[in-house]
Amino acid sequence: MFEKIAVIGVGFMGGSFALAYRELFDCKIFGVDIKPEALRKAKDLRIIDEGSTRIEDLRIFEPHLVIMATPVRTFPSIAKGLRLSIAQGCIVSDLGSVKGDLVYRMEEILGNRFVGGHPIAGTEKAGVEHATRNLFKDKRFILTPTPNTDPQAKESVKKLWERIGSLVEEMDPHLHDFVFGAVSHLPHAVAFALIHTIDELSKEVNLFKYPGAGFKDFTRIAASDPIMWRDIFMENSKEVLKAMSVFAESLAKLKGLIETGNEKGIEEYLRHASSKRKGID
Amino acid sequence: MFEKIAVIGVGFMGGSFALAYRELFDCKIFGVDIKPEALRKAKDLRIIDEGSTRIEDLRIFEPHLVIMATPVRTFPSIAKGLRLSIAQGCIVSDLGSVKGDLVYRMEEILGNRFVGGHPIAGTEKAGVEHATRNLFKDKRFILTPTPNTDPQAKESVKKLWERIGSLVEEMDPHLHDFVFGAVSHLPHAVAFALIHTIDELSKEVNLFKYPGAGFKDFTRIAASDPIMWRDIFMENSKEVLKAMSVFAESLAKLKGLIETGNEKGIEEYLRHASSKRKGID
Repeated sequence: MFEKIAVIGVGFMGGSFALAYRELFDCKIFGVDIKPEALRKAKDLRIIDEGSTRIEDLRIFEPHLVIMATPVRTFPSIAKGLRLSIAQGCIVSDLGSVKGDLVYRMEEILGNRFVGGHPIAGTEKAGVEHATRNLFKDKRFILTPTPNTDPQAKESVKKLWERIGSLVEEMDPHLHDFVFGAVSHLPHAVAFALIHTIDELSKEVNLFKYPGAGFKDFTRIAASDPIMWRDIFMENSKEVLKAMSVFAESLAKLKGLIETGNEKGIEEYLRHASSKRKGID
Repeated sequence: MFEKIAVIGVGFMGGSFALAYRELFDCKIFGVDIKPEALRKAKDLRIIDEGSTRIEDLRIFEPHLVIMATPVRTFPSIAKGLRLSIAQGCIVSDLGSVKGDLVYRMEEILGNRFVGGHPIAGTEKAGVEHATRNLFKDKRFILTPTPNTDPQAKESVKKLWERIGSLVEEMDPHLHDFVFGAVSHLPHAVAFALIHTIDELSKEVNLFKYPGAGFKDFTRIAASDPIMWRDIFMENSKEVLKAMSVFAESLAKLKGLIETGNEKGIEEYLRHASSKRKGID
């Protein structure tokens, strides 16, 4: 595969990718991060071979593939830096949770060698010290090519993720944002709001003292990285807001049923949700 | 301890209690359930020794302790049946998720030998076939005595749960409903509503095809028993509705920040939630 790869953003996701890649291929990995500390840790853990806080240093390294693993709102400015620092034939891909318009903006800057990708894996953990080589194994990987994407670049990225052990699926960039706005971004918004609610109600009694197992599982994703999620909500605002509106209506419907003591209605509402949820497993 | 105990409602919770009790004490266990099939299964699994679909049959069995493990809205009518079928000295307790007024109603019917209890344990599973003997071990158990509760009855129930391995804590019945309305009932309402949302949005694309690990964890509790949860929402409506209102406001606040593209505001909102959530672990 690619002999020299660069990872921009040496955190939990970028670090996990580097570990998975290194296990499979004889390669050199260059890390770029604004935090020198992250680069130091990543070198100590043998996740990267070399590193720099400056994208320009890729000129000397000359990577064949660059993987962007920073919060999505940094993508355009990083892409501009990359354009000046990598060779024409170097493929660029990413691990970002938002696609849609962003993919087209990346194409404008980097050309057709940009291949959008989104591994459906991750945890609430942040930091390269938590990186794990099997994060992407048996997990879905969404590839979001556009009609402009270079077919060979797409094929290379696809093969790479298949070798890593992911289940690769192609999806239109805008469809991606609708789908993951609903099944991933909305649940995160809800979890963050739930913690704010418990905090607000804790003015009466400290409710954080009473976390049942269900509550902990349910709100685990609210411990996720604030910057990463700020960027996701900003970049995918259209789809996230739509999903939040539908959710607010769904919750208001249940609230109305409880308010009016509609026993039969509540039962039907819960039965429908329960059977739909069981259908997923 | 008690030589003869009866469990009303031989499902996942009642069955798990019977298993835990039998492991500790030489005893006879009588099960009451409206479903003959549940009684048959429970006997086959040696969870109960005898069983009946009629509460009146407890007259012959003469239990020393009755544990109610049915959906909470059935409690008053079951209590009326118990009053006619058990001896004066028989203690009655329960595994219900709602306390508050319900505990006082139970006292009116059964007198001071009723001791309200709520094990903070459970899963989305239902049915006696999933019962497990270690469900309550190292889990909190909330005892909700009133000023009227017979001190000896309370002490007996407390000792029983300590022997089972639960961490017993006393709480005022109404405070209990406020606390668990927020940290348990509200998250369930949210999870049920989230499944309805995904179902509604699936009119465009079948979103149930894309459940990431986070989504599955997050919505697992939406697979919970509809009747059990209908009863909880009906019985604890006051506290649940209050928590739902605060939650709707919290979510609307985040929605407003996203709508206005308030980058700094979103970041602060998420940072606060993330740090509060991390504080629980």
